[in-house]
Amino acid sequence: MATTAREGRLRSPEEYRESLRDGRRVFYRGEPVGDVAEHPVFRHAVEHASLDYAMAHDPAQRDLAVAADGYSRYFHVPRSSDDLLARSALIEAATRAGKTLVVLIKEIGSDALFSLLALQRRLGEPYASRIQAFYEGCRDGDLALCVAQTDFKGDRSKGPSQQENPDAYLRIVERRPDGIVVRGAKVHTSVSVNANEMIVLPTRAMAADDADYAVAFAVPLDTPGLTLVASPYLSTKGKSAAEFPLSAERKMVETSTLFDDVFVPAERVFLAGQHEHAGELARGFVEFHRFTAISYKLPLVDALVGAGLLAARVNGLERAGHVRDKLSWLISYAETLRALTHHAAERCRLIEGIAVPDTLLVNVAKLQFALGIHTAFQYVQDVAGGLLVTYPSPEDLEHPEYGAALERYLEAAGGASGSERLRVMNLISDLTAGEYGGYQAVLAVHAEGSIEAEKLTILSQYDRERGIGYARWLAGLENDRWPPS
Amino acid sequence: MATTAREGRLRSPEEYRESLRDGRRVFYRGEPVGDVAEHPVFRHAVEHASLDYAMAHDPAQRDLAVAADGYSRYFHVPRSSDDLLARSALIEAATRAGKTLVVLIKEIGSDALFSLLALQRRLGEPYASRIQAFYEGCRDGDLALCVAQTDFKGDRSKGPSQQENPDAYLRIVERRPDGIVVRGAKVHTSVSVNANEMIVLPTRAMAADDADYAVAFAVPLDTPGLTLVASPYLSTKGKSAAEFPLSAERKMVETSTLFDDVFVPAERVFLAGQHEHAGELARGFVEFHRFTAISYKLPLVDALVGAGLLAARVNGLERAGHVRDKLSWLISYAETLRALTHHAAERCRLIEGIAVPDTLLVNVAKLQFALGIHTAFQYVQDVAGGLLVTYPSPEDLEHPEYGAALERYLEAAGGASGSERLRVMNLISDLTAGEYGGYQAVLAVHAEGSIEAEKLTILSQYDRERGIGYARWLAGLENDRWPPS
Amino acid sequence: MATTAREGRLRSPEEYRESLRDGRRVFYRGEPVGDVAEHPVFRHAVEHASLDYAMAHDPAQRDLAVAADGYSRYFHVPRSSDDLLARSALIEAATRAGKTLVVLIKEIGSDALFSLLALQRRLGEPYASRIQAFYEGCRDGDLALCVAQTDFKGDRSKGPSQQENPDAYLRIVERRPDGIVVRGAKVHTSVSVNANEMIVLPTRAMAADDADYAVAFAVPLDTPGLTLVASPYLSTKGKSAAEFPLSAERKMVETSTLFDDVFVPAERVFLAGQHEHAGELARGFVEFHRFTAISYKLPLVDALVGAGLLAARVNGLERAGHVRDKLSWLISYAETLRALTHHAAERCRLIEGIAVPDTLLVNVAKLQFALGIHTAFQYVQDVAGGLLVTYPSPEDLEHPEYGAALERYLEAAGGASGSERLRVMNLISDLTAGEYGGYQAVLAVHAEGSIEAEKLTILSQYDRERGIGYARWLAGLENDRWPPS
Amino acid sequence: MATTAREGRLRSPEEYRESLRDGRRVFYRGEPVGDVAEHPVFRHAVEHASLDYAMAHDPAQRDLAVAADGYSRYFHVPRSSDDLLARSALIEAATRAGKTLVVLIKEIGSDALFSLLALQRRLGEPYASRIQAFYEGCRDGDLALCVAQTDFKGDRSKGPSQQENPDAYLRIVERRPDGIVVRGAKVHTSVSVNANEMIVLPTRAMAADDADYAVAFAVPLDTPGLTLVASPYLSTKGKSAAEFPLSAERKMVETSTLFDDVFVPAERVFLAGQHEHAGELARGFVEFHRFTAISYKLPLVDALVGAGLLAARVNGLERAGHVRDKLSWLISYAETLRALTHHAAERCRLIEGIAVPDTLLVNVAKLQFALGIHTAFQYVQDVAGGLLVTYPSPEDLEHPEYGAALERYLEAAGGASGSERLRVMNLISDLTAGEYGGYQAVLAVHAEGSIEAEKLTILSQYDRERGIGYARWLAGLENDRWPPS
Repeated sequence: MATTAREGRLRSPEEYRESLRDGRRVFYRGEPVGDVAEHPVFRHAVEHASLDYAMAHDPAQRDLAVAADGYSRYFHVPRSSDDLLARSALIEAATRAGKTLVVLIKEIGSDALFSLLALQRRLGEPYASRIQAFYEGCRDGDLALCVAQTDFKGDRSKGPSQQENPDAYLRIVERRPDGIVVRGAKVHTSVSVNANEMIVLPTRAMAADDADYAVAFAVPLDTPGLTLVASPYLSTKGKSAAEFPLSAERKMVETSTLFDDVFVPAERVFLAGQHEHAGELARGFVEFHRFTAISYKLPLVDALVGAGLLAARVNGLERAGHVRDKLSWLISYAETLRALTHHAAERCRLIEGIAVPDTLLVNVAKLQFALGIHTAFQYVQDVAGGLLVTYPSPEDLEHPEYGAALERYLEAAGGASGSERLRVMNLISDLTAGEYGGYQAVLAVHAEGSIEAEKLTILSQYDRERGIGYARWLAGLENDRWPPS
Repeated sequence: MATTAREGRLRSPEEYRESLRDGRRVFYRGEPVGDVAEHPVFRHAVEHASLDYAMAHDPAQRDLAVAADGYSRYFHVPRSSDDLLARSALIEAATRAGKTLVVLIKEIGSDALFSLLALQRRLGEPYASRIQAFYEGCRDGDLALCVAQTDFKGDRSKGPSQQENPDAYLRIVERRPDGIVVRGAKVHTSVSVNANEMIVLPTRAMAADDADYAVAFAVPLDTPGLTLVASPYLSTKGKSAAEFPLSAERKMVETSTLFDDVFVPAERVFLAGQHEHAGELARGFVEFHRFTAISYKLPLVDALVGAGLLAARVNGLERAGHVRDKLSWLISYAETLRALTHHAAERCRLIEGIAVPDTLLVNVAKLQFALGIHTAFQYVQDVAGGLLVTYPSPEDLEHPEYGAALERYLEAAGGASGSERLRVMNLISDLTAGEYGGYQAVLAVHAEGSIEAEKLTILSQYDRERGIGYARWLAGLENDRWPPS
Repeated sequence: MATTAREGRLRSPEEYRESLRDGRRVFYRGEPVGDVAEHPVFRHAVEHASLDYAMAHDPAQRDLAVAADGYSRYFHVPRSSDDLLARSALIEAATRAGKTLVVLIKEIGSDALFSLLALQRRLGEPYASRIQAFYEGCRDGDLALCVAQTDFKGDRSKGPSQQENPDAYLRIVERRPDGIVVRGAKVHTSVSVNANEMIVLPTRAMAADDADYAVAFAVPLDTPGLTLVASPYLSTKGKSAAEFPLSAERKMVETSTLFDDVFVPAERVFLAGQHEHAGELARGFVEFHRFTAISYKLPLVDALVGAGLLAARVNGLERAGHVRDKLSWLISYAETLRALTHHAAERCRLIEGIAVPDTLLVNVAKLQFALGIHTAFQYVQDVAGGLLVTYPSPEDLEHPEYGAALERYLEAAGGASGSERLRVMNLISDLTAGEYGGYQAVLAVHAEGSIEAEKLTILSQYDRERGIGYARWLAGLENDRWPPS
Repeated sequence: MATTAREGRLRSPEEYRESLRDGRRVFYRGEPVGDVAEHPVFRHAVEHASLDYAMAHDPAQRDLAVAADGYSRYFHVPRSSDDLLARSALIEAATRAGKTLVVLIKEIGSDALFSLLALQRRLGEPYASRIQAFYEGCRDGDLALCVAQTDFKGDRSKGPSQQENPDAYLRIVERRPDGIVVRGAKVHTSVSVNANEMIVLPTRAMAADDADYAVAFAVPLDTPGLTLVASPYLSTKGKSAAEFPLSAERKMVETSTLFDDVFVPAERVFLAGQHEHAGELARGFVEFHRFTAISYKLPLVDALVGAGLLAARVNGLERAGHVRDKLSWLISYAETLRALTHHAAERCRLIEGIAVPDTLLVNVAKLQFALGIHTAFQYVQDVAGGLLVTYPSPEDLEHPEYGAALERYLEAAGGASGSERLRVMNLISDLTAGEYGGYQAVLAVHAEGSIEAEKLTILSQYDRERGIGYARWLAGLENDRWPPS
């Protein structure tokens, strides 16, 4: 593994940061980035990612962050509901500490590892052993991982091999005795600039013609031919924590990830042409990852509820009928997501010895979350008031001439000082009415599978014949046996 | 107890029916009803209610319907999540066999009994012993029970003792050494015409001035002074099962229940003036009963999903994009309710040794159900088509001259015969577009607490200070300790 | 024409009823109906339809019901916005008098006539003259008309000529010098049992292979080979006006309409094989008819608003916050429909000299109505309360023993007597929670084009290139000319 | 008037900019602003506001922008539907040219002027003459105007004179023969930093005790004692037009506006103590202004529709079922707003000779818009895809090493180049997922009256007795006269 970590040891945040200093090729707005841990924007991403490492060394969090075997709990293969609930609790806690932004640096990678482990038996050798070795390397090295799955896709009505541009999906361009050479690109690759390893997975099921596109592997981030083009979206630049309590310091980076004839050594290749397994692997990862997703959305929905409650308080509106109506909706929205998440863990099933959360419930949870977040924003904004976009700056409240007056005018009936009320407005503005809120909204709709993908999964996972059977019995179309099956 | 049942024995449906032959005073459309088990409408209600008795004698259902102690599981006081899950499963199974209509004859009464048992310690003697004795009598006699809670209420902006009409809420008009005399009326009393005992509970919290209204007791249905005026809504008359597969035979009765100076013997009085406990008892019952409610809604939402799936199939529309969209919504709606119901049982807490489902989740579940049912109806109707209200009659399909032609025209691409398709249309029409659907819709909005009552409970049950604390931490208004509490 | 009406004279309700006494072949639940005006159910349909005739003879309504030329305004070909507004006002007034149920007996037929007139020039002779003659005959005879358009359709994924059953769509089976012979069936034919003439139109666009299915014509209802099988849905039988203020007497009939080798004389044939005009005619009718539809929905949405307001009043809830929220929604729903309807008339365009309401707005109006009616039902039910399905009967309130007590208990804070409150509950139950409400809900979703059909029309009618042009200009993809086109 | 403009002349953009160079006291982040037309952020606001002046000098726009009397059409007092439609068209055109951001610099001020003119007769002298003179001065000088209405309000459950802080609402602290002295502050004052005059209006109805708070007047922006504290929200700083096609250059400023014992000369005082007129004036302004609001929302909803259509095209998704569903919803949303806006103008009524758009419809329009915008954002984001928040920068596409590759990967099936697709993503990101979208969303919920204020107005404007009368007639509670009134 291309890291300095030693087996069985939990890395410190400093070790993690140090591990990012290699020859990786990252660009930001057309400029080479250099040391990501020192870059004015990406250092916030690195700091944020460090949370996953810091928790393991914090005595108060250690039980949650470290599994019984001494490794990071993220790498613990779940074998039961309790394992899934503990994993979910860890993800939730890390995101809560991360101020509603997921840390992801171990979450997403372990989801990919679990999906590869679940496929070991069916892939057979030499793949099974390679997967095992890679999994153990990540765990032992306590590595930071990113996953590149989504291809650019070109014309979506056509499969990979039918595209005009043969590289619209990532593909194998050369098979050598010692490995493969791949070409193409992936989009939406999260935390890649500050990961140690990149796991690459197929984005969809593949037909026989698409064999060259049925490819999965892992490479260190400084692999020759690999270029990371970071999205400029949601920069921390020029933002003060007083005014942007979330987005001034919380940062995750997505890249367009280019593979310019990248060589992957054989022991890092996990799928290379077995098109019949591509869909399985793609879906397997997504299902693990959607459970991660609904776990890490919990602090966000809690923050929306809390922000609504807090706004009602500082505005002196806790008794207003319409405010109570909106707050009860927000609570229902948040607690439904939490209940579905936990219940999906409780109703897990074992696949190849790995506990997989209930797919139907995971997708229902994800869908309910995605369909509701814009309404949640609306309700919180409604309770908060127009001050969300017309507030003065923190500097104004400290102005020697008019600051005190402004401070007093901002006081409402809720007992909060003017500055406190301004802080609350700034939080809600950041959370729902600026780039950070927009980022969360778009992620809700598209990340870890779109709304439409979730609908399809729900339909495919439901026991439709049983449902139809009951309706037929009610309609008198089945033998009138009692009770119905 | 005013029944013929013997201790420790599970009554048969016949014994249940026989037990209803007493001097009860029931009116239907202004006419005295006589033997309810023989009445053209109410006999369907009696038949439907018999399901609860039949299940206990059916070998395939016995484990579900009978507790380990040999009594009906309905009377088993829940002590754990498993007890609640078993109770929920029993209620669901009975309602499923009851073709989406709750049986209720033991469900609602045991909810009331549990709320009384939970209050024993606080009420003290002589009430505690009376409650215990009454509970054991119901259990041992395997009785059918109804609960009269909702008062007519008069002017809703005023409390009981402030009403112009002093009887707008039921009250004690005389206290005698051997018991009390009550006057007033209750509305929405379900299954009263075919119950053995009526449990009467206060409808709300009472102030000190309202002491005479803080009253709870039980009386047999043939008690002098008690008059049951049955609602004519949703008659089975003139309906064939072919055309109305649900409402031709499924029937529950609600009454306006008049207490014309009814004497209640002391040993049947459970609350008589202790106004400070009225609210507790009212809420306690409602909370148990809302869990019953979300359990018995499950076959209804399953039927809506199944009906949608079946309609899509017989109409040949399973591949249509908009149909799949609506079906996935229906599945999410149903499975969210199921998951919340089960999770509320799993997250129960013990109150006086009785397992109480999580109040917040129960109310969230009830609210989500209530808010969605009209949309569910719309989607099922959308998939089913206009034939829902323009279909020919079953007699037409058998007509010697044009029946065969009609049968063939009704065939669509789904492989169902014309008659089968008609059956499906009839089911969906009954389920969503006639009196039965309307009954279920209004119950969804109002029964076991209205939509607004659920919102208030949700707001009161949520840990608001914790929510606000997280928002304050995010806003930078708390010491920046890490992680947040 | 097969009627007794004389040219230029407005028929009386009696003349209309008399005109229905012919040899038409109508079945109800497998039984021949005989004189529809005397049939226990259909006589209500005939009475209801008579409203269109009565209005023309009522001095207070004459200006609305009769055009300047002395003919019924329904037959007046609209030439301007004002004509459309007057037509809309007439339809609204008739439906208002019809207690929210559309009368339809001239409305739908004139929609079909206008669509045929608009096609005269393109169809050429001999069709143009036939259409003109038929139109004048209907107008002069003041006839009652029905329209049979929707075919049973069989497998919806296939066109007419590809069906396994060649009669799944109505078709020409023989062309004779003096006319054509047609075979097949139509579904959802409204008011056919009490019309004088049936106009038959194609249901969709036809391909060249489907020429035999591209057929339009008119026949009197007593034409040999024509069989009307009436739907049993929504019978008036056994309903009192006190308990069912709408559905006890308001009735419209739909039939499955069978054509068993029906001969149509040449002068009544308006399209026979010109497949390229089938879609135009189908759409033309639907567009006129959707404007009729949104006009006749107005009294229904007004009734929902009024019912909500009235329920709030009799329940003493006019000041409750959540009630006001629901009432304001209901008002917005109703007034949006009214504004869109009127504005569609104002933005009409002339096609072949006929004023056609704005297609985009008509479809937007219809869609908004359809998407909202289930929510409207929910809100009205919410304000009305559970009494909707648990009310006593009118007979109970008059009972000598308990009637007066019940009457008093039913009084709330709104100043209404118990009987009045019961009337209001009965109205709302009929309107939203029984067969009548279900009928209206299903018609909302499916009649005059389904929700999905309206979405497609909206998409096709919108000037998409203009919309895209503006977005491209905003994105900086157009020459930065100012201002944008 | 504090301007250099001459009577009857339409000022040029340059004259407008020049007129802002005075001694106004404006702060931005605690720093004095100096010349607003040169300030790095506010110069964009000035440029944007100049549109209103530029249009009058553009031959292609002159007919729209200039009334028949040669003055700016904004100052033309509407006397008819046509006047209102022309005003609406002008506001729409200016906002369209302003890339969905309202210009407002004459719109809002003329709304205030109209509401003052409508009150002339009732206020009597000397107020009537002062209002007339001020109106003419604004019109003749072609002035830029802002309106300060909303007070900070303190404890919202209390009226102005009951507040702990007597300045929570702006008030008269001294009455002098030559004028009044006012103290207090206003919040949410739009375009104040770049206006010539500020019109100050009361925010609500006032009781007799609140007489000192019943105050309306106008002052030039450089009046001593007046301090404008600009909100830092939505800065243009550091944004390129390529990446932020809207918010890089479009800018409106809101201020907290402090009145530190400001002297207002008598001839500029329009209300000073006549508390009974305060509510009327407050509501009158709001009603005119909501019509302005729904007019200027039209380019925004058009942009959302256009963005959805364009995204579907560049992503190659125009035929996807779920995409078409969302697009048809967007179109309905936009066209409903447009129809309601135009119809409100057509249904205007004359008040004191001034044409006032239909209040009910204006509020319905505003409410429908406000309730739907978050859903509109969701749908556009759904069609656009996750690239919205993960896109590369424009600089990346021009990078000599990887730019061409990236450009090609970004190509989809819609025929757009990679750069074009990126532009579209940038537009949609700016429009819905960043500060600009958040600004528009919060304005939708709160500006020109909140969602709740609109609901109250709708309820108060509807003819409730007529609605109840119809429901009573349907329920059989009115004499059965026909037809219903």
